[in-house]
Amino acid sequence: MSRATESTSRFSPDELTRFTREILVHYGVDEERAAIGAEVLSTSDLRGIDSHGVARLWIYSKWLEEGHAKPCPNVTVRRETPSTIAMNGDNGLGIIVGPEVNLRVIEKADAVGSAWGTVSHSNHFGIAGYYSLQAVARDMIGVVFSNATAQMYPVGSFHPMLGTNPMSIAFPAGEEEPIVVDMATSAAAFGKIEIAHRAGKGIPEGWAVLQDGTPITDPAQVYSDPYALAPLGSTPDHSNHKGYCLASVADLFGGVLSGAAFGPHCPHMFFPEEPFSNQTKRGLGQCFSAMRVDSFLDLPEYRERVDQWIREFRQTPPSDPNIPVLIPGEPEWRSRLDRSANGIPLNDNVIAALKTLSDETGIRFPD
Amino acid sequence: MSRATESTSRFSPDELTRFTREILVHYGVDEERAAIGAEVLSTSDLRGIDSHGVARLWIYSKWLEEGHAKPCPNVTVRRETPSTIAMNGDNGLGIIVGPEVNLRVIEKADAVGSAWGTVSHSNHFGIAGYYSLQAVARDMIGVVFSNATAQMYPVGSFHPMLGTNPMSIAFPAGEEEPIVVDMATSAAAFGKIEIAHRAGKGIPEGWAVLQDGTPITDPAQVYSDPYALAPLGSTPDHSNHKGYCLASVADLFGGVLSGAAFGPHCPHMFFPEEPFSNQTKRGLGQCFSAMRVDSFLDLPEYRERVDQWIREFRQTPPSDPNIPVLIPGEPEWRSRLDRSANGIPLNDNVIAALKTLSDETGIRFPD
Repeated sequence: MSRATESTSRFSPDELTRFTREILVHYGVDEERAAIGAEVLSTSDLRGIDSHGVARLWIYSKWLEEGHAKPCPNVTVRRETPSTIAMNGDNGLGIIVGPEVNLRVIEKADAVGSAWGTVSHSNHFGIAGYYSLQAVARDMIGVVFSNATAQMYPVGSFHPMLGTNPMSIAFPAGEEEPIVVDMATSAAAFGKIEIAHRAGKGIPEGWAVLQDGTPITDPAQVYSDPYALAPLGSTPDHSNHKGYCLASVADLFGGVLSGAAFGPHCPHMFFPEEPFSNQTKRGLGQCFSAMRVDSFLDLPEYRERVDQWIREFRQTPPSDPNIPVLIPGEPEWRSRLDRSANGIPLNDNVIAALKTLSDETGIRFPD
Repeated sequence: MSRATESTSRFSPDELTRFTREILVHYGVDEERAAIGAEVLSTSDLRGIDSHGVARLWIYSKWLEEGHAKPCPNVTVRRETPSTIAMNGDNGLGIIVGPEVNLRVIEKADAVGSAWGTVSHSNHFGIAGYYSLQAVARDMIGVVFSNATAQMYPVGSFHPMLGTNPMSIAFPAGEEEPIVVDMATSAAAFGKIEIAHRAGKGIPEGWAVLQDGTPITDPAQVYSDPYALAPLGSTPDHSNHKGYCLASVADLFGGVLSGAAFGPHCPHMFFPEEPFSNQTKRGLGQCFSAMRVDSFLDLPEYRERVDQWIREFRQTPPSDPNIPVLIPGEPEWRSRLDRSANGIPLNDNVIAALKTLSDETGIRFPD
C-alpha cells in the first residue's frame, strides 16, 4: 500500500464515489453492488492508501470491458457449516465479491460467536482494511488475508513466488478510533516503489532485487528488468523468513484453502491471461474471519481495556519528543479526517486516466 | 525462539520427558497434566527450539515452588458460544493451561466448523507451534497468539511495551509434512541474542537497542543495561511498523480480549512480582483458533493442493544451487527427525540447572 507524497488537485470524496459508481454501472454492474465497490475504493482514498483507491478504477474497468471480470457474478456457496462458509466469486470484481462474502462470514459470527470464510474465483479486492472494518462496524474483530500476483521471493531464492499478500486485523475500541493493522507482507509495498519512482528518488536496499539477487536502488529498474520484492525482514540476518512465512500464510488461507489459484499461478493484475469464460481460471482468493467481542468480554469492559491500551501506547516516552508513538491505523484515520474535510488528492497520471475513462463512457468526471 | 549452535551432550527424548513429568509431579501437578506439560517441552526440544524446551523447566519449577504458578489450577469457562470459548487459567503453568484451552477450541471447531478461544490468568506456554500442531493432528488449521513480558519497543519509542509476542499458524498437508509458521514478532527472538552471547559473537544492528536508541552489537549489553528489542522489520525504512503491528495484534488477542494483563503490565518471567494469591494478577493470555479443513474443501483435494504448494516452492530456482528453498516449519521437522533418532543436545548450563533440580527433588536426571 502506498501513500502519495505528491498531489496536484483535491476532489470531493462524494463526487469521486459517484463517478466510480456510475463507471461500474456503465460496465454492467448493478446499482447496489456498484455502490459497494465504490465505497471500497473511496475508503482506500480517504484512508490515504492512494494506490488502492480510485487509481485502480481504470484497470477494473478494463477487466469488465475485456471480459477478465464479470460485472454480475453469481456468487455461490460451495459448502457451509454453522461457523464456516466457502464461496465461489464467479470471477467478479474483488471489490464486489469480497464485501459480499465477508458479510456472510459476519452473519455467521453474529449467530454463533465467530466464523471463518473463504472465496475462490475472486480478484484484487482493494485494501484489506476495508474488510476488517466491516467487522468492526458490528462490534466484531475482523481478520482477512488475500493472495495476489507473484512478485515476492521466498527465502533462499530470488524468483517471485508470492504476492505482496496483504493481511488486516482490526479491533473495535471505545472512545478511541479502532485499531487497524493493514499491511503487505513484503518489506515494502509495490506502491512505495511507484512513489519513489514518480518522485525521482532512490529506494533503500532490502526492498527489491533483480532476479540474480542484485539489490535494486533505482526504482526505474523494476519497470525495465525482471525483479522480485523482498519479504518483510529484508535480509536473513533480520528474519526475512518471517515475511516469507506471513505471505505464505496469506496464500495458504486465501489461495490454497479457498480453492483459488495460489503462488505463481495467481493471475497477473495488468496482464490477465485469459477471460473468465475459461473455466480453468480460479482467480485470486481471500479468507476472512470475524468474532463477536461480547463472546469474550462484556462490551463495555472490552472497550475500556482497548482504550487503555491505546492511551498507554500513545503515552510511551517517544524517541523524538515532538512525535508521539502512533497506534496501528492512526495514520489512516488521521488521513480520513483530513480528506473527508479537504478532499482527496489525485496526481496528474491518475486524473488523466480517469478523464480518459470519462471520455470513453460519457460519465462526467468531477471538477 | 532459538536454535542452539553449541551442544555438549545428547539425551534420550523419552528420558528427558520422563524427567520433566516427574519434576512437575514432584511440585504437585497431577500425572495426566504433567504428561501434557512434558510433551510441550519435549516438542520444543525435538523441533530444535532449545530456548523453550526442558531449558525452561528450572524456572517453571521455581514458579510452582514459590507460588507464582498453581500446580493444580481450576481452569474455568468465563463464557462460551457454539464457536467461542473464553477461559480463565487460574494462574496455572501455561504449558498445562494452554493445551487444555486449545483442546476446548478444537472440540468446538469439530462441532460447528471453526472456533476461537481465549485464556486469561495463564503463563508462558512454551512454543506456539505446539498448539497449532494440536489442531493439525485433527485435520484442522490451527492459529495461536500469545503475549509475553514486555521487551520490544513500539515504533517511535525505544521503551519496551510489548513482548516478543509469538504467533503460530499451521496447515495440515498430505504426503508432505505440515506447514508450520511459528515466530516471534520481534526482529530476532531473545534466544538468538542468548546464543550469540554464549558463543562470544556480536549481533547485527537492528535486533536490539539501549533505551536511548543506541544500537546494541555486543550481546553482553542486554544483560547489563536497560535494552529494548526491535520489532520485525528492524528499521522504519524496512517497515518495522509491521512488526510492531503484529506484536500488537498478539497482545490485543492474547492480552486485551482474553482479560489477561497486556502491554507493559505483563508479568516478568524471571522476576514475577507477586504470588498468585494476589487476585489482581491477571497473568499472560493466549488466543487460539481452529478450523476443520473439510469445512472448506474435501480433505483429499485440500491435501493435494497443499502438497503441490510445498513441492512447487521447494523447486523454486535457489539462489545457491546447493541450498533448496525451505518450507515454513521444515527446519523444525528436520530437527525432529534428527533428534528423535540421535537425542536432544543440551548445553552445559542447562545440564547444570537440571542437575541442581534433580538434587533438590531426588528425581533422577538422565545419564
